[in-house]
Amino acid sequence: MCERESSPELRQDPLTGLWVIISPNRSHRPIERETSPLSVEKKECPFCPGNESQTPPEIDAFREKNSLPDQPGWHVRVVPNKYPALNETSQILKSQNLLYNSIPGDGVHEVVIETPDHNSELFSLQVSELVSILKVFSRRLQQIRKNRKLKYALIFKNAGRKAGASLNHPHSQIIATPVLPTKAKIEIQKLKQYYRNNKSCLYCDVIKSEKRQGARVVAESDEFIAYTPFASRFPFETWVISQRHVSRFEMESEDRLHNFAMMLKRVMTKLNRAVGLDAYNFLIHTAPLVAKNDHYFHWHAEILPMMTSVAGFERGAGFYINEIFPELAAQKIREAN
Amino acid sequence: MCERESSPELRQDPLTGLWVIISPNRSHRPIERETSPLSVEKKECPFCPGNESQTPPEIDAFREKNSLPDQPGWHVRVVPNKYPALNETSQILKSQNLLYNSIPGDGVHEVVIETPDHNSELFSLQVSELVSILKVFSRRLQQIRKNRKLKYALIFKNAGRKAGASLNHPHSQIIATPVLPTKAKIEIQKLKQYYRNNKSCLYCDVIKSEKRQGARVVAESDEFIAYTPFASRFPFETWVISQRHVSRFEMESEDRLHNFAMMLKRVMTKLNRAVGLDAYNFLIHTAPLVAKNDHYFHWHAEILPMMTSVAGFERGAGFYINEIFPELAAQKIREAN
Repeated sequence: MCERESSPELRQDPLTGLWVIISPNRSHRPIERETSPLSVEKKECPFCPGNESQTPPEIDAFREKNSLPDQPGWHVRVVPNKYPALNETSQILKSQNLLYNSIPGDGVHEVVIETPDHNSELFSLQVSELVSILKVFSRRLQQIRKNRKLKYALIFKNAGRKAGASLNHPHSQIIATPVLPTKAKIEIQKLKQYYRNNKSCLYCDVIKSEKRQGARVVAESDEFIAYTPFASRFPFETWVISQRHVSRFEMESEDRLHNFAMMLKRVMTKLNRAVGLDAYNFLIHTAPLVAKNDHYFHWHAEILPMMTSVAGFERGAGFYINEIFPELAAQKIREAN
Repeated sequence: MCERESSPELRQDPLTGLWVIISPNRSHRPIERETSPLSVEKKECPFCPGNESQTPPEIDAFREKNSLPDQPGWHVRVVPNKYPALNETSQILKSQNLLYNSIPGDGVHEVVIETPDHNSELFSLQVSELVSILKVFSRRLQQIRKNRKLKYALIFKNAGRKAGASLNHPHSQIIATPVLPTKAKIEIQKLKQYYRNNKSCLYCDVIKSEKRQGARVVAESDEFIAYTPFASRFPFETWVISQRHVSRFEMESEDRLHNFAMMLKRVMTKLNRAVGLDAYNFLIHTAPLVAKNDHYFHWHAEILPMMTSVAGFERGAGFYINEIFPELAAQKIREAN
């Protein structure tokens, strides 16, 4: 049982086909008990400058010239998650029988510390600071893509207790898994089929339709558009997507990331004025690592404010109940100035 | 916008095929702000005896002889949800185009008030009281099944704020939808395929395998078995299922419901001792309403303790991270005496 307790495992549910990560490491992580971000003591925060030794050694960083790894002087810092949901190991062995399918929990779980400033918010950073964070995301995805054993990567941010954060210092995470999640698999099947039938990208066609209808559009620039999706799962859920077709986030140039950062800051600031972004998840979906030919995919970001709690119906039926029409949510976000 | 704000709508996501209920009614419901169940004033609780006029008129009840509907004297009482996620209407019109699929939010959303006692817990009730609740569930499902427009029904309980409860008085809910949720659709496809290939029910084979292995079994009686599933999504997730093959919960006799109630009370009491059932979801999955021939389905109950919060990775990838091996969870539940 001892070894079990430290080695994560991926298991597939025989009834639904859904994968789950069983990861006992996670239960050892510290969880801030404070309700307000301001009540946390900086000297105890493992993500604050001066406390670099409290994290595993850094993998990547934006640093001031002549500053040393794992010392202060960084602007963005990437470290392995100290309590990873997945292990980094060299070998993947699959164990499968008729009912039970499992593989060792090998993969990547990294933390991107977004700023040295403990008390800031992602959307209150300068655009240039946001660009540095996005560049780090991009570099990490490029690196992860080199590992042929990994099939899927997600960049995600949990901000606020209600969104699942255990530490308040602004940070994002990257998880890469050795299996394609069932949800992504289903989406990819739909995207491929749509591409075959219509000779166009489903996301591109949704963007065109959103622009034509206008009711769900929140903000628009020459290069990006933000809208509340037709079947939004969460109140005020907002997507930011490139108007031009690009499959992989990590293929974007610095100029384009600058444009994206401007749109992101604009939309999140509006969302914060409209509903107060105390708790939210932020996601960047890039094309799955598994596909060589991923022309059907269109990278995008999702901002999911967490205002209501998910309950038994959602967990039992996988069916979300959203209390506000996306058209009304879009109007409220647009009007928040 | 006014009509929109009161009429729910079901919408299908063009990218994932997942359905969402957009239900503005829900945002008007009262939410208790207290953190402890005991701090709620009974005189203000709409589910307490004497306050029957605060709910819509009752649909069904177990009552003392000579007591009147919507008056005290009930043991279990069913009312329409005052803030329903779905409306009961007579006609379902489908609106569909290439990208956007939606139907009016017609369906059933009922509340089962489990006991007149505001401060009790489901698992602290007498077995005979549990049987009354289960009989009411069964009667409601039989009634709902008569409506040919409904495709799916779920019985669910949100207990505690972390599990999504908005009121503390012990109650369950029933939602029936005019579409089959995508999650159920996928599961049914798997079950049917398994039945074709193996000439047996997948649940029955999982039960046999669980009994043979033993490591995940929590409790067993002649008629029912409780175990922590191989790919549990949540820490201490526990299923209770009939050892004999029965597709529909609402086909069970009173004797069998009595047996089920005993197992439920036993398992929930153990779970409460092991981890403290402050917040949990309880679900009863019966065969979908849509199927005439549902021999492949096997009704079951799920108890989902809510100890950790779901975060960005789960929301983005649909991939759960569970911090404890189901085998260890089962051991801890078994040993809680």
